[in-house]
Amino acid sequence: MDKANPLLSEMALKTPSWLSQKGPLSQIVVSSRIRLARNLQDVPFCPWAKRGELDQVLRAVKAAAKRSPLLKNLTLLSLHHLSALDCFFLMERHLVSQELAMEGGARAVIFDADEITSLMVNEEDHLRLQRFGSGLCLVPCWGEIAPLDRELRSLLPVAVSQEFGYLTACPTNVGTGLRASVMVHLPGLVQIRQIDKVTKAVTQLGLAVRGLYGENTSITSDFFQISNEVTLGKREEDIISGVEKVARQIYDYEESARRRLMAEAKNVIYDKVGRAHGLLKSAHLLNFEECMEYLSAVRLGVDLQILKDVSMETLNELLFLIQPAHLQKLAGSELVPEEIDSHRAKVVREKLGNASSL
Amino acid sequence: MDKANPLLSEMALKTPSWLSQKGPLSQIVVSSRIRLARNLQDVPFCPWAKRGELDQVLRAVKAAAKRSPLLKNLTLLSLHHLSALDCFFLMERHLVSQELAMEGGARAVIFDADEITSLMVNEEDHLRLQRFGSGLCLVPCWGEIAPLDRELRSLLPVAVSQEFGYLTACPTNVGTGLRASVMVHLPGLVQIRQIDKVTKAVTQLGLAVRGLYGENTSITSDFFQISNEVTLGKREEDIISGVEKVARQIYDYEESARRRLMAEAKNVIYDKVGRAHGLLKSAHLLNFEECMEYLSAVRLGVDLQILKDVSMETLNELLFLIQPAHLQKLAGSELVPEEIDSHRAKVVREKLGNASSL
Repeated sequence: MDKANPLLSEMALKTPSWLSQKGPLSQIVVSSRIRLARNLQDVPFCPWAKRGELDQVLRAVKAAAKRSPLLKNLTLLSLHHLSALDCFFLMERHLVSQELAMEGGARAVIFDADEITSLMVNEEDHLRLQRFGSGLCLVPCWGEIAPLDRELRSLLPVAVSQEFGYLTACPTNVGTGLRASVMVHLPGLVQIRQIDKVTKAVTQLGLAVRGLYGENTSITSDFFQISNEVTLGKREEDIISGVEKVARQIYDYEESARRRLMAEAKNVIYDKVGRAHGLLKSAHLLNFEECMEYLSAVRLGVDLQILKDVSMETLNELLFLIQPAHLQKLAGSELVPEEIDSHRAKVVREKLGNASSL
Repeated sequence: MDKANPLLSEMALKTPSWLSQKGPLSQIVVSSRIRLARNLQDVPFCPWAKRGELDQVLRAVKAAAKRSPLLKNLTLLSLHHLSALDCFFLMERHLVSQELAMEGGARAVIFDADEITSLMVNEEDHLRLQRFGSGLCLVPCWGEIAPLDRELRSLLPVAVSQEFGYLTACPTNVGTGLRASVMVHLPGLVQIRQIDKVTKAVTQLGLAVRGLYGENTSITSDFFQISNEVTLGKREEDIISGVEKVARQIYDYEESARRRLMAEAKNVIYDKVGRAHGLLKSAHLLNFEECMEYLSAVRLGVDLQILKDVSMETLNELLFLIQPAHLQKLAGSELVPEEIDSHRAKVVREKLGNASSL
């Protein structure tokens, strides 16, 4: 039960392809994600389902996946067959939610080798289908996920109401069951203290702004998630274009914040970027938040061409590697917090090309 | 009057030889200094002397210096011929005191090319003779300064009382007029929070402990000056051996603090040293105190062989170069504070071999 899954150990060494930095506007709009919530007819929603009913859902999904041309070659992992560390690892990969990682019972995830498409089984909803992409690419993500959704609906009895649309465990998802979100990197707006103003404006447009690590953590960083709140009474395409439009505006705001900083406070930016880079290359103990803060500054430095010997690929790789479960997967064993901080610092030094300096 | 003195601009590029790091125990006892206070008979002490009387002292000293085999080839600079920046520069070189640098009137300094021996004229006392050396070397410093003192006394009418000894402007210097001091670097004792205990013990032995920048500044660092308080009723040799003995004890305490840290908190020390090194190599704005803090940590790292590609010579050089007047001498112009912080960071990056990274 608790043996490390070899597939996951291998995954720990590579960056998911949706962080390839190849998509449109990806220097600021890092990635896009479309998520669909679906539930099976005649089975209680997960929060109220009995153990046997969750088993029934998982069996039905497994059977459907086998018959699905789009799903049959994907990997299926039952979470109760994995160690706690492996479950946390999948959470850090954004393949399962905290909810799915922490709870017992018949829960599973199906995903492709590139980690672009995944299907969570028995999370808050029976089915949560998601598709990631690099940069601002909500429309193509929707173009890829819609056929899979149609296929699943042809293979499974999905709960739909004539009046409301798709039925979901939480009323906030009823209707389309769709959440379109983008991860944006806004160090410029944070630095010129305009981030609260932007956040407020986005909220007034009916969208939600969250920190990188979602609703349940206090970790702050210059990374934010922007997504739709309303899922009901709108066409999927309209929801998606609404989020996309706001993402483009935020891109422009961030660009102009960066230009303003370089014009008015060049020394301060060079100092911030330089110090962050220097610290990451030389610290021997790094906690997660501090590390994220410096990675954010270095990312800004790379985009502004202040730092020329750091690649965005390395920074994206580090966004994953510095997480606790990733570090433990790399180390091949469970670690206590101080060991994690020490391993994190070592991985960062190595990736930034300073392995031999101390 | 305000033109930069070319000799001083040249001096700004080199480190005084007493920071050569070649003396005994110099990894902790950085340098030693002997200072003698002398006054001329029948002239009021400087704080009460009229302008004409200060002129009279300076003329007498100049005439004596010409006839002195030990002084005649040394450089004499009249401070009222120098710009304010040059006066501050001499203060940063430890060749003149703040008092001498800031006040008007007939004030001067005589010093040798190595900046080991100097004679301040019309500071608090008419004559303040000092000798520096690398490491713990109070006895040799005394051996070098005593003949010069004898020579001066043979050439000038020095005020001596049968009862008290040498008479001085401040009663705390009466008697021998001698202050023997050492500059010690105690990052280990600061880190293990034993510095206050050591300071208290030293004070109870009748010695004074001051920060690196003397009595009149609030700047703190891991560098301290230890010197005798009592100048009266003791032979010079006994005062000197008293300070030397305490310096040796402090050396032992600091050594054992460092050993303890490496045994019990190696990760923390590597982290502190690594971060300091990384920051110095990459910051673009550095204020003086922060810079001193990091230089202190890097110095510790070099001594503990954590950092192998930094030389103690470079660190000693930087102890001088990061000072505001030095930076302005190097820049060839007066600078505003933010420019000073930017120049300081640039000089540090260059000296630590990171000139091209940003």
